Amino acid sequence: MSGEIEVVYRVRADPEQIAGRAEALLLEQTVELPRSCLGTAFVRDHVVGRVVEVTQAGADTWRVTIAQPEATAAGDPAQLLNVLCGNSSLQEDIELEDVRVPLRLGRELGGPRFGIAGLRRVTGVAGRALTATALKPMGLSVVEIAELCRTFALGGIDVIKDDHGLADRVRSCLAATEDVAQSMGRRAVYVPNLIGTPATVRRQAEQARELGAQAVMVSPMLVGLAFLNELVRNLGLPVLAHPAFGGAQRVAPEALFGRLFPLFGADAVIFPNSGGRFSYSAETCQAVARNLRNPLPPANPALPVPAGGIKAASAGKVLGDYGSDVMLLVGGSLLEPSGSPLVERCRQFVGAVHSFPYES
Amino acid sequence: MSGEIEVVYRVRADPEQIAGRAEALLLEQTVELPRSCLGTAFVRDHVVGRVVEVTQAGADTWRVTIAQPEATAAGDPAQLLNVLCGNSSLQEDIELEDVRVPLRLGRELGGPRFGIAGLRRVTGVAGRALTATALKPMGLSVVEIAELCRTFALGGIDVIKDDHGLADRVRSCLAATEDVAQSMGRRAVYVPNLIGTPATVRRQAEQARELGAQAVMVSPMLVGLAFLNELVRNLGLPVLAHPAFGGAQRVAPEALFGRLFPLFGADAVIFPNSGGRFSYSAETCQAVARNLRNPLPPANPALPVPAGGIKAASAGKVLGDYGSDVMLLVGGSLLEPSGSPLVERCRQFVGAVHSFPYES
Repeated sequence: MSGEIEVVYRVRADPEQIAGRAEALLLEQTVELPRSCLGTAFVRDHVVGRVVEVTQAGADTWRVTIAQPEATAAGDPAQLLNVLCGNSSLQEDIELEDVRVPLRLGRELGGPRFGIAGLRRVTGVAGRALTATALKPMGLSVVEIAELCRTFALGGIDVIKDDHGLADRVRSCLAATEDVAQSMGRRAVYVPNLIGTPATVRRQAEQARELGAQAVMVSPMLVGLAFLNELVRNLGLPVLAHPAFGGAQRVAPEALFGRLFPLFGADAVIFPNSGGRFSYSAETCQAVARNLRNPLPPANPALPVPAGGIKAASAGKVLGDYGSDVMLLVGGSLLEPSGSPLVERCRQFVGAVHSFPYES
Repeated sequence: MSGEIEVVYRVRADPEQIAGRAEALLLEQTVELPRSCLGTAFVRDHVVGRVVEVTQAGADTWRVTIAQPEATAAGDPAQLLNVLCGNSSLQEDIELEDVRVPLRLGRELGGPRFGIAGLRRVTGVAGRALTATALKPMGLSVVEIAELCRTFALGGIDVIKDDHGLADRVRSCLAATEDVAQSMGRRAVYVPNLIGTPATVRRQAEQARELGAQAVMVSPMLVGLAFLNELVRNLGLPVLAHPAFGGAQRVAPEALFGRLFPLFGADAVIFPNSGGRFSYSAETCQAVARNLRNPLPPANPALPVPAGGIKAASAGKVLGDYGSDVMLLVGGSLLEPSGSPLVERCRQFVGAVHSFPYES
């Protein structure tokens, strides 16, 4: 018997709309289809979760609790994020407010390996708050940074976090804290930052451990939140998480999808089309497409893939907006029950795209 | 001679404040210190970038263009994200609007390896838009999914994306498209989804390639945007990017920092304290701390680390708010020029924390 993942969302909606909104939210996180498209009993009974509770939180604000079958997360951190706030993260009227995972999934993820007790052990601090500071600014030499680290250690700071994880720098800073420990009898914990792609972070972690670091820092949103969970499985050191890039809301869609995704290697980029179930304007969508097709040298153009509520019947309208360098992604609308067989509906959609009078 | 990374932000500010706001934004992305704290000429001249232009975009909206030295990104995807929108992502008055990277950095990142031309080659589509659909819902059996895939292929759809990357499913769907290709003379491109932590994604990619997939899908915000760049370096297949989790704005701080970061293994979590230079309320901060300390079983409690503008002199106030299970992270305020030596200022901060009358 599998447990349930409970997710609490804050939702903005009018009173007469909230029931429908809660149902749509439930379906968006797993099957991504209206209930009328679910032809299979197994899917209806074991994949779709349930709305547990809807309570009013303000004039037009509601707290919606949804329970999703534990199996939808497949014991994987990235899958879990997707079930919690994948597509729905793109809808402006909702905010993920809380998460409760069942025991088994909690054990699989493992959570903090050291936590408060482990950090108190490593720092030797009991019964009071811990002190910490940061080695700044970026750009100081190793000698200058180590000197600053020594000063902080002499000053009695418990934890000294760095924004770098370069070997020379880690070595010098650890030496500085060791020197001070010899004279003061108490060691400050120097915390190097692990930053980069997963391979880089793993190399830095290995090095930090070999050099004798007692803890490390990671920015989960920069290195990948799901990767954090893989990293801690055999890290053996406490991890201090930094919130950088954690407010990705402050990245406009045309920048995140239009610039950053392709810059990092995406060849085609799916984004919510205007007029669908997401909230981007037509101008935003055009800006995303423009950026994808007109990259900065030396990058290749990437293919725009507007999606989310595009109906086969509206292919012409979308092609009028985007022209020929586009991929039309039509999902749910093809699967809506109708008089004609699915293969025919596909052919109509395909025919509309093939026969569209593209401007050359 | 190194180039510059140009970053365009949209900033909300009153006319009399915008100059100061642009300067603060410039410093936040690299040195994270006020200019008065920058004692080193090298840092002032080679690490801090420059405000290129501020133009008015609305009554209280401005477009601020900042140039950062290319070296601040260190040729690394995660470092680049940090320089573009690391700490600033947490400030509600700014939005990253555009990015221009210099040629060398653009070459290092590499961008889309296949892009529009490669996708047209793989699908065999020229001179018109591409068609795509999705295999849904989650939870269908392999046989049901392969049958759906066959129908879509028969219907003439160019690209059929899947939400899974399981070997059996990939094999069956590829076989279905192959069958249809034999009879129709045209092959639909089946695109499995790679999802999981980096090790899982690499395994799935290897498998997809061996089974003969011609393209793959990835959700960069779920698997890690920086990891995408590492993945494409030796993937050899076009990548379709999915926007799931791309609007992380819809995750409340108490959920992202208070629940998800520790759930995935963070032992201590830094978050912007209220009253500092970020916009979280005192209630939000308390909620983050509460969630960190009171995890769901079986997780260990994680240590709250409020930060961002905490002054050494206000340690008592912060300890009053958070009690003893906390790490006080004081950065810039310790480094502000003052009459006393840095080590003394550290000792005052440390003394305040050591001698605070904690409730037991």
